[in-house]
Amino acid sequence: MLQDRIRLSSLLDKVMSPAEAALLIKDGMTVGMSGFTRAGDAKAVPLALAERARTEPLGITLITGASLGSGIDSVLTEAHVLKRRLPFQSDSVLRAAINRGEVMFIDQHLSETVELLRSNQMGPVDVAVIEAAAITREGGIVPTTSVGNSATFAILAEKVIIEINLGQQIDFEGIHDIYIPTRRPFREPIPVVSPDSRIGLPFIPIDPAKIAAIVVTNQQDSSAATTPPDDETRAIAGHLIEFLGSEVRKGRLTERLSPLQAGIGSIANAVLHGLIESPFHDMTMYSEVLQDSTFDLFDSGKLAFASGSSITLSAACQARVFPEIGRYKNRLILRPQEISNHPEVIRRLGIIAINTALEFDIYGNVNSTHVGGTHMMNGIGGSGDFARNAYLGIFVTKSLAKGGTISRVVPMVPHVDHNEHDVDVVVTEVGLADLRGLAPRERARVIIDNCIHANFRDLAEDYYREALKHGGQTPHKLAEAFTWYTRLEETGSMLPK
Amino acid sequence: MLQDRIRLSSLLDKVMSPAEAALLIKDGMTVGMSGFTRAGDAKAVPLALAERARTEPLGITLITGASLGSGIDSVLTEAHVLKRRLPFQSDSVLRAAINRGEVMFIDQHLSETVELLRSNQMGPVDVAVIEAAAITREGGIVPTTSVGNSATFAILAEKVIIEINLGQQIDFEGIHDIYIPTRRPFREPIPVVSPDSRIGLPFIPIDPAKIAAIVVTNQQDSSAATTPPDDETRAIAGHLIEFLGSEVRKGRLTERLSPLQAGIGSIANAVLHGLIESPFHDMTMYSEVLQDSTFDLFDSGKLAFASGSSITLSAACQARVFPEIGRYKNRLILRPQEISNHPEVIRRLGIIAINTALEFDIYGNVNSTHVGGTHMMNGIGGSGDFARNAYLGIFVTKSLAKGGTISRVVPMVPHVDHNEHDVDVVVTEVGLADLRGLAPRERARVIIDNCIHANFRDLAEDYYREALKHGGQTPHKLAEAFTWYTRLEETGSMLPK
Repeated sequence: MLQDRIRLSSLLDKVMSPAEAALLIKDGMTVGMSGFTRAGDAKAVPLALAERARTEPLGITLITGASLGSGIDSVLTEAHVLKRRLPFQSDSVLRAAINRGEVMFIDQHLSETVELLRSNQMGPVDVAVIEAAAITREGGIVPTTSVGNSATFAILAEKVIIEINLGQQIDFEGIHDIYIPTRRPFREPIPVVSPDSRIGLPFIPIDPAKIAAIVVTNQQDSSAATTPPDDETRAIAGHLIEFLGSEVRKGRLTERLSPLQAGIGSIANAVLHGLIESPFHDMTMYSEVLQDSTFDLFDSGKLAFASGSSITLSAACQARVFPEIGRYKNRLILRPQEISNHPEVIRRLGIIAINTALEFDIYGNVNSTHVGGTHMMNGIGGSGDFARNAYLGIFVTKSLAKGGTISRVVPMVPHVDHNEHDVDVVVTEVGLADLRGLAPRERARVIIDNCIHANFRDLAEDYYREALKHGGQTPHKLAEAFTWYTRLEETGSMLPK
Repeated sequence: MLQDRIRLSSLLDKVMSPAEAALLIKDGMTVGMSGFTRAGDAKAVPLALAERARTEPLGITLITGASLGSGIDSVLTEAHVLKRRLPFQSDSVLRAAINRGEVMFIDQHLSETVELLRSNQMGPVDVAVIEAAAITREGGIVPTTSVGNSATFAILAEKVIIEINLGQQIDFEGIHDIYIPTRRPFREPIPVVSPDSRIGLPFIPIDPAKIAAIVVTNQQDSSAATTPPDDETRAIAGHLIEFLGSEVRKGRLTERLSPLQAGIGSIANAVLHGLIESPFHDMTMYSEVLQDSTFDLFDSGKLAFASGSSITLSAACQARVFPEIGRYKNRLILRPQEISNHPEVIRRLGIIAINTALEFDIYGNVNSTHVGGTHMMNGIGGSGDFARNAYLGIFVTKSLAKGGTISRVVPMVPHVDHNEHDVDVVVTEVGLADLRGLAPRERARVIIDNCIHANFRDLAEDYYREALKHGGQTPHKLAEAFTWYTRLEETGSMLPK
């Protein structure tokens, strides 16, 4: 049985316990671990590390693809193992430690981390810990539900620990397409010309001599917590689908649309679900995370092909899809996140990118990361890779939060992740603002008219009127730009008493 | 003589006066004009338009490559011809009208304008006005000192007006490399793999039947106003060259460095001049504007090849270089700005991008465009195309302005063009901060320690200390984030009395 998963027989004697494998990781090391949006993360070695940290000093720099599942970031944070963490996380315990300044968190565009490692601008990677479905006869590593940064971690690391997860379907083999850009200054074009372009190998090619330990696990990925569509998310989806329909009528898009990317979360998921009932057909996705909606679109016959870097599903969808993953195999590719998110490919394919904003301002600047301008939520993820280079950079959010005390459309965002140059369309349940080709004063008009909640509209009008007196390309009154935030802090609401 | 420049004889009867040609442009039209950083701009037809606007209503949307010379934007603004203007400008009269809200200015990444036009998300382009050195026997347009957006304007426009400028050297023929990406969804990789890759035609290929008018001019480009290096710009250059040297010693770069891009302006020019005395050699440039420093580097034997979209020189350098441009031809390529600034190519080549910041903040966010957060200076230009995708995104500025009353390093920039995710290194004459791999709190430390002027250091420390009490990934005290600006407005200085 294990020989089906570890096919290079010389590696069978590398099988050991997680605790033994974890001994390869020493205090002060930089460790690259698999895992992207809870999918395909290393599940045993990190826990063994946390256990060891109870009795000896053990602090590491942890680099992953994106967020991990199974509360691993919580456990590692509580054990004080994490000194530095990049490029993304979505863990409440880690988040609190980051915001206390205890863990140094480097929030990066998800396509860029391996570029920095490869050029020796960060690193080196001492140890890689990679979950795999199998190791081939040649010593190639077959990933599981995500590729993330695993390929480059394994290639660059001094030593590699493999977690063979018997709980992951062996049928994932063949879904992955591992391509590593050639080294600059001799880099060739990345040959992806369509979401279904296969350009690499179905496994991560490394020297098997680097595989220093193999750990056997048997555990499903953490499932995604899905929130069912509600009136607001359905309204957002409705506005967006109507807009895409009008783009088709204007001859800018065909009914196949353009390859779709959707960020993680309930709004993006609701938008994609909305496409099931839309007039569009034979659609494709070129995204990072494939969620329930991808498989619902497949099953509805609307989706022809999906490329991503990970598959993150609800428990119900996991139970439905994973045992039958072979059935989807000819319509699916999982790529390194460097390729799924590569500016070159995104610009070439002409992607429609739909990402969730934490908030946006009346000029179309988007905050994706910092609550109140200061406290990290999760990180920018791939939203910058996609929005900057997309055919259409779309940001969605509900207009209100916290029972209506907070407006998600504000005079000035206190942290900018995507600026006016990169944001084409913003949508709330109130409506949609098409910002393309508009000057800032024109954008303020359509955003206030179309997107802000009625409860905050007069307040926004007041600010904008005062700002206009000050003049400029982008009128602001700096002394009052953040009064909605200071009021929130003082009174618990952005609304005046 | 004219037959040497207009080689397709059927076009000779299209020669007419600027006033006659300008009649092709009607009120309400969208017009694409050649011109990038004063180079290769249409010089006669825009003035004829302004003249006509004295007697009839004539308002247009004007799209160019980048800034124009000869005060053309001033003349057009004063004649109220400009209703909308994009994607860049650097004219004081136009700037004032923009900031009064009279001209709608759309500030775009310079690589993106033609992408939006081609996909019909903006436009259509009614008339293109293109300066040319010649028209070939096939009707191909040979540009002059810039390519900018001229190729796509000419291809997309209903009608094309050519300004044959006898004052531009015919020897420019052969320098240009005109490549237009194929239409999505069938776009091929852009085959530039090195600054010297020639991938297109030496002229703009259009149907000669579209050439509706030809105007003959005889006028040099406006020369660049150059400021000689001073102590501060020399210090900035020194810090940067020392940094690049340390990157070579660490094995991250070779002594050839990586292809260089430098924004326009005296600081970038001083940095490039500094390279003449550096240990680096056989360097290349993959930039947008080639300035005096490019030719000084050629003449010093340090530079092997330069690719750009325009050549903008001082009067003295024009007089020296242009008559001998043939001598440089095998080391020079001028490309469409879509290609010189293309994210795909910039990421592939691994460019060292050096751009001027208006100001930056203690966390490494850069404002390139908005004075005081509200008033447009010139526009983002290509800095976003380059910084986001560069191997190294470097921003330079003097630490002080206006006789020391203004600090160019502030607690929070009131407009963000390049955020923490895109800025690798910041430099003032005080020193250099290498931000790679640092969390925001760590960045604040090195920026305050290395870059801010001593007169503002305590003030910045005070702000940061207070901000730390508030906590977060990126500590701020929003109520006081802009007090330096409000103090400047009230007292004329960012420094307290």
